[in-house]
Amino acid sequence: MQSELEIQITEIGRRARQAARALAVLSTEQKNAALLGMAEALVARAPDVLAANARDIAGAEEHGLNKAAIDRLRLSEKRLAEMAEGIRQVAGLSDPVGQVITQWTRPNGIAISKVRTPIGVVGIIYESRPNVTSDAAILCIKTGNAVILRGGSESLHSNIAIAVALQAGGSAHGLPENAVQLIPTKDREAVRHMAQMDQYLDLIVPRGGHSLIETVVSHARMPVIKHYHGVCHVYVDRAADLEMAVRIAVNAKCQRPGVCNAMETLLVHREVAGEFLQKAAPVFAEKGVSIHADPAAFQQLSALNYPLLHEAREESWSTEYLDLILSLKVVDSLEAAIAHMEHYGSHHSDAIITRDAAAAERFLNETDSATVYWNASTRFTDGGEFGFGAEIGISTDKLHARGPMGLEELTTYKYLIRGEGQIRE
Amino acid sequence: MQSELEIQITEIGRRARQAARALAVLSTEQKNAALLGMAEALVARAPDVLAANARDIAGAEEHGLNKAAIDRLRLSEKRLAEMAEGIRQVAGLSDPVGQVITQWTRPNGIAISKVRTPIGVVGIIYESRPNVTSDAAILCIKTGNAVILRGGSESLHSNIAIAVALQAGGSAHGLPENAVQLIPTKDREAVRHMAQMDQYLDLIVPRGGHSLIETVVSHARMPVIKHYHGVCHVYVDRAADLEMAVRIAVNAKCQRPGVCNAMETLLVHREVAGEFLQKAAPVFAEKGVSIHADPAAFQQLSALNYPLLHEAREESWSTEYLDLILSLKVVDSLEAAIAHMEHYGSHHSDAIITRDAAAAERFLNETDSATVYWNASTRFTDGGEFGFGAEIGISTDKLHARGPMGLEELTTYKYLIRGEGQIRE
Repeated sequence: MQSELEIQITEIGRRARQAARALAVLSTEQKNAALLGMAEALVARAPDVLAANARDIAGAEEHGLNKAAIDRLRLSEKRLAEMAEGIRQVAGLSDPVGQVITQWTRPNGIAISKVRTPIGVVGIIYESRPNVTSDAAILCIKTGNAVILRGGSESLHSNIAIAVALQAGGSAHGLPENAVQLIPTKDREAVRHMAQMDQYLDLIVPRGGHSLIETVVSHARMPVIKHYHGVCHVYVDRAADLEMAVRIAVNAKCQRPGVCNAMETLLVHREVAGEFLQKAAPVFAEKGVSIHADPAAFQQLSALNYPLLHEAREESWSTEYLDLILSLKVVDSLEAAIAHMEHYGSHHSDAIITRDAAAAERFLNETDSATVYWNASTRFTDGGEFGFGAEIGISTDKLHARGPMGLEELTTYKYLIRGEGQIRE
Repeated sequence: MQSELEIQITEIGRRARQAARALAVLSTEQKNAALLGMAEALVARAPDVLAANARDIAGAEEHGLNKAAIDRLRLSEKRLAEMAEGIRQVAGLSDPVGQVITQWTRPNGIAISKVRTPIGVVGIIYESRPNVTSDAAILCIKTGNAVILRGGSESLHSNIAIAVALQAGGSAHGLPENAVQLIPTKDREAVRHMAQMDQYLDLIVPRGGHSLIETVVSHARMPVIKHYHGVCHVYVDRAADLEMAVRIAVNAKCQRPGVCNAMETLLVHREVAGEFLQKAAPVFAEKGVSIHADPAAFQQLSALNYPLLHEAREESWSTEYLDLILSLKVVDSLEAAIAHMEHYGSHHSDAIITRDAAAAERFLNETDSATVYWNASTRFTDGGEFGFGAEIGISTDKLHARGPMGLEELTTYKYLIRGEGQIRE
């Protein structure tokens, strides 16, 4: 027997499917008009959203969330105005739906066009700030997809208020009913029901930590595009420009340590390890970076009196710290660096620093990661930095979307074939 | 505790992952040399393969398989020579791996290339003829993927012998060990274990009927690209050239009824139904087509004394007959035809026959199927007919690959970024 929750989730799915059919045939102009209506409503309904947000903040304080987490949760007039501005920017981007990817004519005269279309209904599960509710919804609407959102429980009231504002503002400007829906419960079973609902959900995108990803992966019947962790590496080659290597390593670790494209492990070729660490250690120390080092690096850093030094353990090499903490290993060769990343990495973003073009090309070719860098910081793995205009996140999966996932990755395609009565002989 | 079977399957997965790493860095020339070695071995080892095939045939006869099924199972010197020739043709196709899909430079000077790469390890589960063992394996090798094959139980000995020949012939020409592996058991649990093995398997492609698809979908932890059924439609519009409509409908139903792109349901606009059925009925009758008709069509076909006439039931509209049987319905409008396909169809291949360009473009735009036709037979949904050179099958899924799946669809991509020391500010 179905639980009440399951019936509720299924009904949300059914409505989303209906909305998706209506959305799929809207013109770019109609979708953009709806987006502008959504931006307007978000500003107009700011008092409702801020009141809902105040409830979430009060709840979070009651539950003893730390100050940083509460800050991430907090909305303001200014934050809502920025979200609205983000919507207007997406309205201004070009619409991938209807784009002809490629076309050709066969010897028998049939003309084949491969054309971008919406995916249908997209489910997005996230644990982060309430602005994701708006960001994710508008990218789906822009690409003609109905969206079912499931946010973090600590921001439930804010998320509901934002989704209600978006749907109301959109509906007033031609958006189909139920194009934007939010799962209105903290019940964790809701995720399981979403993941089972393949008759209504064409794609599910979980953005978050291990437990969320595992729940989705173990239950999902539909395609999943995971936005999971980044154990990213910088490899300082024997032929590296060591000044550049320090600059990039420090940027990759310290510029914003709490994100998935930040470096977690630094690999250094044995021949240059001494000189490199002499240059790098003072900068890492000044930034307050704790280093978990393998024996060779530990010895060198000890000699340099590095202040925040630990011995690396086996699990250090697969840890995503998301903090000013670094695993550091001395390797004997380019091959050893690639083998280390293959074994411990998460295939997200990995960089080589070298002046040796042959070594660089080998690293680029043989490293099986979504984004592979030569002489640049891993921090560029980002839809905005790629020039995509907007991103739904960074896919850590290989199929359909890999790496930064923009508007195009929220579409699929179909083949249109125009003939003059051709039959198959 | 792991069963012995699970340990065995996991070991196959581990070996495949190892092989995939070695395969990914082979050049096109190296892969082609291996493919030619595989073709050679298939011919050289024909006696072994045919002996294994004789065991399967004997088993099938013992189990009382029908003659058609036994014929599909049967190999011969000639059939093996054709399979070898197919391998040589694939060797001659251009290699998608390494192709630059797109590239651009950002204002900060980093150069981004989106480059095709192998997926890694691909699992293919099929129920069809033993030649699929060779066809599927070579497309994976061509694209640098290791492959784990799981064929139908009735052709197990043939499949093993073919896989052994391919691996031996490949290894003698530089193919990594275990690039081609076959699950050597009839145990159905093997499919479940494969579907759970996401640490080793990057993609699983089930080709087959409902029970196989359901087993994979309900257990899979990795991406699945289903090759499922085709409930394909031809819609004869009010503005159709009726001679063309008859020709296409008969081709779509009768030219090869046992395949997924054959028409299963014919929709006819009420205004032309009388005239169309008068022209079509004699041809369908001559071909021996049983028709399951809705009341309006039933009445007209009765008046024409159609010999093989049945009343359609609700389940007729979602049935894939794969036989000389047709569901037939009279509809009031283009919208009604689209709504019918949306409700009952499988979104595989659907056609409109009309002289009305506006109606055709609306049908092409609003029908959410992998391949949508205007004035051509649904039978063209095929990698060969599309000019892909080879196909692994027809995806009935929407993500990553939709419709005919050729070499490109057996690849993914990564981003290569070349910089000069850029860091993120």
